[in-house]
Amino acid sequence: MHYKLIIKTIAALQLVIAFFHLICAGVAFHYDETEALRGFIFSISLLVGFGVFFLILYRNTKPEGVSTKDGFVLVTLSWLAASLGGSLPFYISGAIPSYTDAFFETISGFSTTGASILTNIEALPMSILFWRSLSHWLGGMGIVVLAVAILPLLGIGGMQLIKAEAPGPSVDKITPRITETAKYLWYIYVLFTVLQTALLMLGGMNLFDALTHTFGTVATGGFSTKNTSVAHFDSAYIDCVVTIFMVLAGVNFVLHFKLLTGRLKSIVINSELKAYLAIIFLATLFVAYTLHGNVYTNAADSFRYAAFQVASFTTTTGYATADYEQWPYFAQIILFMLMFVGGCAGSTGGGIKVIRIVTLLKQGINEMKYLVHPRGIFVIKLSGHTVKKDIVYAVSGFFFLYIFLVLTVTMIVATSGSDISTSFTTALATVGNIGPGFGMVGPTENYAFFPAYVKWVLSAAMIIGRLEIYTILVLFTPMFWKK
Amino acid sequence: MHYKLIIKTIAALQLVIAFFHLICAGVAFHYDETEALRGFIFSISLLVGFGVFFLILYRNTKPEGVSTKDGFVLVTLSWLAASLGGSLPFYISGAIPSYTDAFFETISGFSTTGASILTNIEALPMSILFWRSLSHWLGGMGIVVLAVAILPLLGIGGMQLIKAEAPGPSVDKITPRITETAKYLWYIYVLFTVLQTALLMLGGMNLFDALTHTFGTVATGGFSTKNTSVAHFDSAYIDCVVTIFMVLAGVNFVLHFKLLTGRLKSIVINSELKAYLAIIFLATLFVAYTLHGNVYTNAADSFRYAAFQVASFTTTTGYATADYEQWPYFAQIILFMLMFVGGCAGSTGGGIKVIRIVTLLKQGINEMKYLVHPRGIFVIKLSGHTVKKDIVYAVSGFFFLYIFLVLTVTMIVATSGSDISTSFTTALATVGNIGPGFGMVGPTENYAFFPAYVKWVLSAAMIIGRLEIYTILVLFTPMFWKK
Repeated sequence: MHYKLIIKTIAALQLVIAFFHLICAGVAFHYDETEALRGFIFSISLLVGFGVFFLILYRNTKPEGVSTKDGFVLVTLSWLAASLGGSLPFYISGAIPSYTDAFFETISGFSTTGASILTNIEALPMSILFWRSLSHWLGGMGIVVLAVAILPLLGIGGMQLIKAEAPGPSVDKITPRITETAKYLWYIYVLFTVLQTALLMLGGMNLFDALTHTFGTVATGGFSTKNTSVAHFDSAYIDCVVTIFMVLAGVNFVLHFKLLTGRLKSIVINSELKAYLAIIFLATLFVAYTLHGNVYTNAADSFRYAAFQVASFTTTTGYATADYEQWPYFAQIILFMLMFVGGCAGSTGGGIKVIRIVTLLKQGINEMKYLVHPRGIFVIKLSGHTVKKDIVYAVSGFFFLYIFLVLTVTMIVATSGSDISTSFTTALATVGNIGPGFGMVGPTENYAFFPAYVKWVLSAAMIIGRLEIYTILVLFTPMFWKK
Repeated sequence: MHYKLIIKTIAALQLVIAFFHLICAGVAFHYDETEALRGFIFSISLLVGFGVFFLILYRNTKPEGVSTKDGFVLVTLSWLAASLGGSLPFYISGAIPSYTDAFFETISGFSTTGASILTNIEALPMSILFWRSLSHWLGGMGIVVLAVAILPLLGIGGMQLIKAEAPGPSVDKITPRITETAKYLWYIYVLFTVLQTALLMLGGMNLFDALTHTFGTVATGGFSTKNTSVAHFDSAYIDCVVTIFMVLAGVNFVLHFKLLTGRLKSIVINSELKAYLAIIFLATLFVAYTLHGNVYTNAADSFRYAAFQVASFTTTTGYATADYEQWPYFAQIILFMLMFVGGCAGSTGGGIKVIRIVTLLKQGINEMKYLVHPRGIFVIKLSGHTVKKDIVYAVSGFFFLYIFLVLTVTMIVATSGSDISTSFTTALATVGNIGPGFGMVGPTENYAFFPAYVKWVLSAAMIIGRLEIYTILVLFTPMFWKK
């Protein structure tokens, strides 16, 4: 194991976090929030101290000889270390008095889950809320690069599908090196951020609200600075902007890159994109139809609230503009089913991912063809390209482990006395990085009431789900640690 | 398509059903139940007329040239035809006034599901209740032969695993021909029936109750002749007998055959059996631990009720001796999770089947090994034998379609206004042939309240689940009907 390089990378990461804490310290200074300012300064000192020390200590460590194994450890530890560093201001400023809660909230931020333990969000200092939303934005940035550039290299549970989606020498890796890839993806990410912030401000939001809600949207996170989430603004225009950007954030960022560089053909034939948009469209229609006349008297409102909630669940954002638990059960079940799907691979969205669902569905149909013609040869095609059997195999394994993990988390949540709906949707909402669920974790509730051990397990669930399960589980196999 | 042979086989099947209706007519005569007797006689006339007509018409039709395709159609139509013929006495006698309900109850019987639309079971004539329980017994008989002898030939979703479990020329098919296989399996089935009936009578049950509850047990069905199910008898001895026979009925009948013929080694190394017993053992421990002190004051009671309910859910029987919805949520969640598992392949149990879960778990772990050693070769072994990759592939496809089917049924149930727990567990309980679920279909409730269209969909769900999904779904692919 290339420990020195791993520690060095984490040290650099802490400096990045310290830099963003510095921005938050500026916000704290601006709003005259003494406690929060102290928290940020303390955290900056600690992180800079740690970062600089190890960067100097390992200044001669080079990335030569880094292995796939190092990759798994590095990715896992980076996410953990970021959450440790990121939790400092919450805890030190006293904004979140329990460290368990502070860590939970941070990991929920970085994993772009959006599950919160806060019972009165608006009581917190502005700068702390800013950092909370910023953690989404940073996490989203991390996950896009991870999904597009790093996980396919590690070969995680069918993430090669992203590669399979775009074969050929130059398109394959978008640009040859990870850093290049990262740069282009971040351009798009920043572009979306600027655009949405501007559009929200045009709708009457102030800069602070516009920025924080943009962070929560483009990262498909879901943290709001308001107790009633986006419903607070009660504006059809704002709902519309957030809906559109949630949907955009749930799309593979490679496709956004292609769109901007004019390669329209590969977007039109993209199997995952078509399925993703079809799911959102159909689910919205069904929900809107159910709501119309039952909950809202006019069609426009039915459509507006249906589209928002459907987009929020599909992309695993978790914002809410309605208490969907008061909706007819059929509408609720549609949202419940969307919890199994998630966004596109290579987006900031969580969940199983649309491409995996499409692959498995095609495989299920293929199996039927084999029953009719046992000696036939039937391949799975995605976006016009044949998918290798090994990848389908890996996707199947992923799907089973995902369900298995959700059921295990369900069981642990239930030990604290939660009913089936609450336990099961809590597991789905954390492993799938969605945020809210049903029952005691519904849109008007939060995660505060869980005992500490459940919060730690859910923290683990969020990070395991975010890193596509395998990245972390593989660390627990004896084979991984054999020389 | 070999239509003549298919119709001829169904005609023979109707004569078999008519024969059992004759026995029920005897029961009706014995208890002096005029309406029921009329129902049975009418049904016998109709079935015998149909059966004899087609057997004479197609007397020269031989099974030569029968194809795999014929197999799918035959199996599906047999189950449907049996349910049509079997529903006649319920409807004609007026015991179940709605035909939808009569059909639902019959298919629930033949599929050994045990979901009932009866609100007051004890109000029905004894002979009708006898037929209701007998339909379980006949369905169980059919499914064992189907699973062990027919489905592996058709190559359904990994049912070849049963073959894989017992390789070698003579052991492979137990005995070379389906009829021979069937004969031996039925010996065992009848042996269990006689044994359990005798043991229940020793516990103070009368012959009628002992027989009907034995039918419900060995078929893992779950129909009782009492409104409060097995709880009615309130006897630790009876609970114990039923628990043991539920567990036995959930075991691959090939293993029972091996046990009786002294081939112990292949039983000891059987991966599925070990996992099945481990699941029951651990789940019982967890549930008993949760119940102790919370629901029951002494350990023996906690263990008794835990073991019964766990065995009932794992084997997909559906009998209840406790209102488990009043139990602590953790105990409920364990039962909920067992709904995903089911019995062993080749048993009368439903669900996904233990062997598939074991296969998928091993594949999930293998995928992790591939992450560490991408060029390694890792095989899946069951009972000491390597499982072919194609079979694992088929099992993965099955698992995904199973979950997909459950979610689709959930959605349809929800259109009738059922909450998430009810809709989801109704889907799990029907596709998995369990019977009761949670919420509005809990142990003290029944399926009467669903509107007719939901009952028809659930009837379809029960038969699709019972026939391992693919058997029926393949009939809906265009490829199947191409020349």
